[in-house]
Amino acid sequence: MALAQRLDRLGTETAFAVALAAADWAGRGNTVYPFHLGDINIPTAPHIVEAMNRAIADGRTGYCPGAGIPELREALAEDIGGRRGMSLTPEQVVVMTGGKPVITKFVQTVMDPGKEVLYPNPGFPIYESQIEYHAGVAKPYRYLPTEDGFAIDLDQVRALVTPDTVAIIYNDLQNPISAESTAAEREAIAQLAIEHDLWVLSDEAYFEMRYEGESASIAALPGMAERTVILYTFSKKFAMTGSRLGCAVAAPEIAKVFATLNTNDESCTTHYVQWAGIEALRGTQQPVADMLEVLRERRDLTCELVNATPGMAVETPRSTFYVFPDVTEAMEAMRIEQVSDFAEQALHHTGVSFCTRRHFGRPQPEEDRHYIRLAYSGIDVPDIREGLTRLRDWMGSA
Amino acid sequence: MALAQRLDRLGTETAFAVALAAADWAGRGNTVYPFHLGDINIPTAPHIVEAMNRAIADGRTGYCPGAGIPELREALAEDIGGRRGMSLTPEQVVVMTGGKPVITKFVQTVMDPGKEVLYPNPGFPIYESQIEYHAGVAKPYRYLPTEDGFAIDLDQVRALVTPDTVAIIYNDLQNPISAESTAAEREAIAQLAIEHDLWVLSDEAYFEMRYEGESASIAALPGMAERTVILYTFSKKFAMTGSRLGCAVAAPEIAKVFATLNTNDESCTTHYVQWAGIEALRGTQQPVADMLEVLRERRDLTCELVNATPGMAVETPRSTFYVFPDVTEAMEAMRIEQVSDFAEQALHHTGVSFCTRRHFGRPQPEEDRHYIRLAYSGIDVPDIREGLTRLRDWMGSA
Repeated sequence: MALAQRLDRLGTETAFAVALAAADWAGRGNTVYPFHLGDINIPTAPHIVEAMNRAIADGRTGYCPGAGIPELREALAEDIGGRRGMSLTPEQVVVMTGGKPVITKFVQTVMDPGKEVLYPNPGFPIYESQIEYHAGVAKPYRYLPTEDGFAIDLDQVRALVTPDTVAIIYNDLQNPISAESTAAEREAIAQLAIEHDLWVLSDEAYFEMRYEGESASIAALPGMAERTVILYTFSKKFAMTGSRLGCAVAAPEIAKVFATLNTNDESCTTHYVQWAGIEALRGTQQPVADMLEVLRERRDLTCELVNATPGMAVETPRSTFYVFPDVTEAMEAMRIEQVSDFAEQALHHTGVSFCTRRHFGRPQPEEDRHYIRLAYSGIDVPDIREGLTRLRDWMGSA
Repeated sequence: MALAQRLDRLGTETAFAVALAAADWAGRGNTVYPFHLGDINIPTAPHIVEAMNRAIADGRTGYCPGAGIPELREALAEDIGGRRGMSLTPEQVVVMTGGKPVITKFVQTVMDPGKEVLYPNPGFPIYESQIEYHAGVAKPYRYLPTEDGFAIDLDQVRALVTPDTVAIIYNDLQNPISAESTAAEREAIAQLAIEHDLWVLSDEAYFEMRYEGESASIAALPGMAERTVILYTFSKKFAMTGSRLGCAVAAPEIAKVFATLNTNDESCTTHYVQWAGIEALRGTQQPVADMLEVLRERRDLTCELVNATPGMAVETPRSTFYVFPDVTEAMEAMRIEQVSDFAEQALHHTGVSFCTRRHFGRPQPEEDRHYIRLAYSGIDVPDIREGLTRLRDWMGSA
């Protein structure tokens, strides 16, 4: 009884190993400063939970449509369209159990075996895993440090396109880098997609997790709505990671396929949670603003302390809840060659736990700088201060 | 921009079309008697909802492990093992967003493209859809009417096995037929699986939805635990269809793969719903007993009225919430050739809405009897009486 060969191509999120190592270290009586989590240590707002309980009391505990309840699809079309300057219909919205299912369903829908999909690296590791699992060729594109933060290496992207390329995954407001496209960069990706007739998955998980400026969607550019699938999630904006609620926005023919995949794979998304989602979108937005203020304070402190640490430097990102400092010089000063060793020693000497660039894809050729990702969504200001001060002291003593 | 070819092989649950037709007929001002639903019109018990709210208040709103929270895996191992006479460890349990995801994850894990999987037909239509979608060969096996209700055509099953057969899907307490294996039948399937070294998916969604007798699992037979994946769901037993909570029970190597698939496909199952699941398993079982009493009354009335209808006949099933009457003679008397026409005319003349055998797979060769499925899980006793009386009067007048 062998297992299927497709499993040989299945990747995962290796970041979970970091969480395990941190838990193990804490279990041995040590203080851990959790900068590894992409999760939020802020409760879901009470009005959202109350809406869920009203739905349960109203008997919304049975099955619902695979594409989601019509009321939530309508609220999502209005909200997502409104914030992007797009006119969306509920038929273009398919509710999912979070944002993540959009990735596998996009890949399954637009990519035949042997075809190529471009994806950001460093980037969310599930892109690569899903492309390869479904027998496609995953072609990574990179980001280059510029004076204005990181930018997509557009020359590399253009050079990667072949007649077999069918799609590009684009993650503006990027995890783990916190890179943000200029309008020109976004337009260049759109132009490339149109020119080569590519599908686009626009991962907009962090669209509203920003502290300055305005977000924009590639789907709103001319000629892009029909070829772009937007990944939307309630996870970050509404502190609902554990609720598993998100959606895809797509052309109606794609949305129909996604709904059929939902029917096949999980019937529907938890019914009463969808009613909570309507309240999240249409009820008071004060908790969202409050959370962003909390996160802004954490971001500012994190960046301040990182830049006060010898051999570490980072731009202050305007969005997401990650910073991605270059630690190359710090590692050289400490004579540490592998970034994984750096992370392990940091944990054991200071309790500071974080992911490294290696948790976000295989290094690209000629890549010679080392980076770590500090997430400040799951750690409070006093612990940020204590943890990163310990880290600075340890690195300064080397 | 073409869509992927795999989509040509994707099936669905055509029963949704019946729900749409019923809603359309009701929308035109007609009374509809819903016998088409595999859903339950009974609320989730309050102590389960309260446990969910306690979990939310305790901050269980963030991500949790892809395999499920350890506490629920432990409770499931204990409960599922205990009721089947098996000793299960939490490592063998992987929490899923309902029972349905177990089907696709089983197929993906054990079946390579071109390999054959046996499955019951009539049966839950997603089996066939998932086998074909993942490029396998779906080979249906049938049930034969006997003096003791329906039985699997074991000769046919044996004849279907080839060197390319890798698995058999087995649904004791069967949807839509309500067939139930004798111990001998279950052992014959187990023997076949061992002899030909097959994986087994044992769909046990209705394991505890029974009114007389005792359920038994094929996984508990000698030599079967290591080759069997049990599909377990909270949906029916605890009236939690819309909560999307279930699990797979499998050998540790398979469980590990399922957990990685969860991480890839949806991160995790809704966190606080898992705490509700623990309360469902460990709290009072009175609501379960009460619901079974309600369903028993509905079953008895449904069978009584069906058997009082000219040209329709059915055995009283001891489990599930479906009856599957033979309507061949009724259709002949009414000069209706297609069972789909029979269903449509019944809806339009009486308001009674139901699925037919055609919603549960393509007819097999030499199949010459017609069947419908009446679900009594979503309709109360007065409506059962009114609807089936109307049906009888209409059929009697033909």
